[in-house]
Amino acid sequence: MAERNRQWRLAARPVGMVKESDFRLAESPRPSPGPGEALVRNLYLAFEPAMRGWMEDRPSYIPPVGIGEVMRGMTVGQVVESNLPGLAPGDLVSAMGGWQEWFATGTALNRLPPGVDPTLALSALGITGLTAYFGLLDLGKPRAGETVVVSGAAGATGSLAGQIARLQGCRVIGIAGGPAKCAWLGAEAHFDAAIDYKAEDVAKRLVELAPGGIHVFFDNVGGAILEAALGNLAERARIVLCGGISGYNEPEPRPGPRNLMNLVVRRARMEGFIVIDYVARFPEAMAKLAQWVAEGQIANRVDVQKGFENAPRTFQRLFRGENFGKQLLELGARA
Amino acid sequence: MAERNRQWRLAARPVGMVKESDFRLAESPRPSPGPGEALVRNLYLAFEPAMRGWMEDRPSYIPPVGIGEVMRGMTVGQVVESNLPGLAPGDLVSAMGGWQEWFATGTALNRLPPGVDPTLALSALGITGLTAYFGLLDLGKPRAGETVVVSGAAGATGSLAGQIARLQGCRVIGIAGGPAKCAWLGAEAHFDAAIDYKAEDVAKRLVELAPGGIHVFFDNVGGAILEAALGNLAERARIVLCGGISGYNEPEPRPGPRNLMNLVVRRARMEGFIVIDYVARFPEAMAKLAQWVAEGQIANRVDVQKGFENAPRTFQRLFRGENFGKQLLELGARA
Repeated sequence: MAERNRQWRLAARPVGMVKESDFRLAESPRPSPGPGEALVRNLYLAFEPAMRGWMEDRPSYIPPVGIGEVMRGMTVGQVVESNLPGLAPGDLVSAMGGWQEWFATGTALNRLPPGVDPTLALSALGITGLTAYFGLLDLGKPRAGETVVVSGAAGATGSLAGQIARLQGCRVIGIAGGPAKCAWLGAEAHFDAAIDYKAEDVAKRLVELAPGGIHVFFDNVGGAILEAALGNLAERARIVLCGGISGYNEPEPRPGPRNLMNLVVRRARMEGFIVIDYVARFPEAMAKLAQWVAEGQIANRVDVQKGFENAPRTFQRLFRGENFGKQLLELGARA
Repeated sequence: MAERNRQWRLAARPVGMVKESDFRLAESPRPSPGPGEALVRNLYLAFEPAMRGWMEDRPSYIPPVGIGEVMRGMTVGQVVESNLPGLAPGDLVSAMGGWQEWFATGTALNRLPPGVDPTLALSALGITGLTAYFGLLDLGKPRAGETVVVSGAAGATGSLAGQIARLQGCRVIGIAGGPAKCAWLGAEAHFDAAIDYKAEDVAKRLVELAPGGIHVFFDNVGGAILEAALGNLAERARIVLCGGISGYNEPEPRPGPRNLMNLVVRRARMEGFIVIDYVARFPEAMAKLAQWVAEGQIANRVDVQKGFENAPRTFQRLFRGENFGKQLLELGARA
């Protein structure tokens, strides 16, 4: 067993697009678990656009990652030693394990149910699935027959939000980049229509595909895509602000949509949320998500890169639109 | 009795700031009331920023005013002849009477309760009061002890929204232009604080005056003021989009706030509304507004200009921030 613990630590506050040099590859001794702690070896790192915000030194819903600290991130790992009742060597756990090979902790380790694949635990059955579930259902409140539009639709959260909308009886239109993603949305995720924002006029296509207007817009992108959706709202439309990836790497915040007043004319609502606020209801949502996955009702796509040394480059894939499904990094084979 | 009926008709779709030449002063014969109709002589015209939107040829919540048509607007008038049961000569009515001296109609004439002053019927006890009531209470959902910020606070709707918030036990901060308006907000409308946007840094003052963040923002202005409020939201804040007067006369829509993502971080909501959607609940609101007025709990300020020929110029006052309270135009003495 390796004694070293490689870690990616935050080296600098990023300016504009996050760079590999904003992180520093460091090495620490492998930690030892204290009383009431378990030692975990990370198998997969998971990447979310929101992590870009954690690198900024500004007030937010959680404190920023400090310079010199291990980069924060969700992981699935395997327990190697355990001083915790209920956890045994070999168990798989999800945790905020960070960008490192090993960690020891006594709190917030969630044992995966037997048979659940780590990649599933980090996507449809993890924070990603929960985000899609609560954002779409609690804020979007879709009703059967309504038209739901999802941006970042081939991404992890977007693809799940769209499919959950379809399971509510909605007509679902996805916005994604490139023909491969759009084809997947139709063939695998069973969206009713897809718009390729790299090749099509999104505003024009939304009017064509949703002549009665958009009832729910689940937005992961912001910027011009949000403006296009605002331009074609149905009355009493709900805009779920899940994220705004188009602006996360801008050195200066960009102006917002020019047509916010459409919220007045259409009596519409725009609302943001943070999934951790729903922690008390995670079990309800997890049960439903697990059922849909077991029934084959949800296509869950993951994009698995390999090699701990590639963590920063894998993170960058999110902001270049290179990931196709949930972005993961596989560190090594489990025991 | 004059036989002529002077009318301001829409002459052109305005480009940028609304101009007097966008209207045309015309003369028609005084109408005669048909069966089931009443003839009404307008005493007061009322002006709202939303009327600027009615002049635009684009889809909205009501059809635009057509070129050549009499400009649409709320009025209070006096019945001169009546073929309608329940209405007698001398009665005062509020109606969508338009920018003209006379009109005849059989529908949508609301008789003022005895003793109600026309200027009150067109402000606190009219659409303005109803807009403040439903926007603040139904969308804003203020709770006692919360901080409520109102823009356009010395305007008709804003001043009422702030005072209704105060009556809910909230701390109320108004944003208005110039020392006279700010002084009135404190001395007469009993706001807890006022910010003069012409002289102060609104974003900075909001942080100083609301260190715990803004719980409800009732916005009549949009633009930079909305961005400043978005920058200082409390968790689960509600932004009530009542209007966006700062942009109504822009030839091209201006970019929106750069910090919309604060809605996510603060789990906040931004919502628009149109008061006519609440028509079924107007009686409930009117009763409450009338009670507050009778009890002297609400300062209701009106800005009365005179002379039918001044209608376009009076309308322009709204967009120059010249009105101080509800903008009205008095046409002549009643019989």
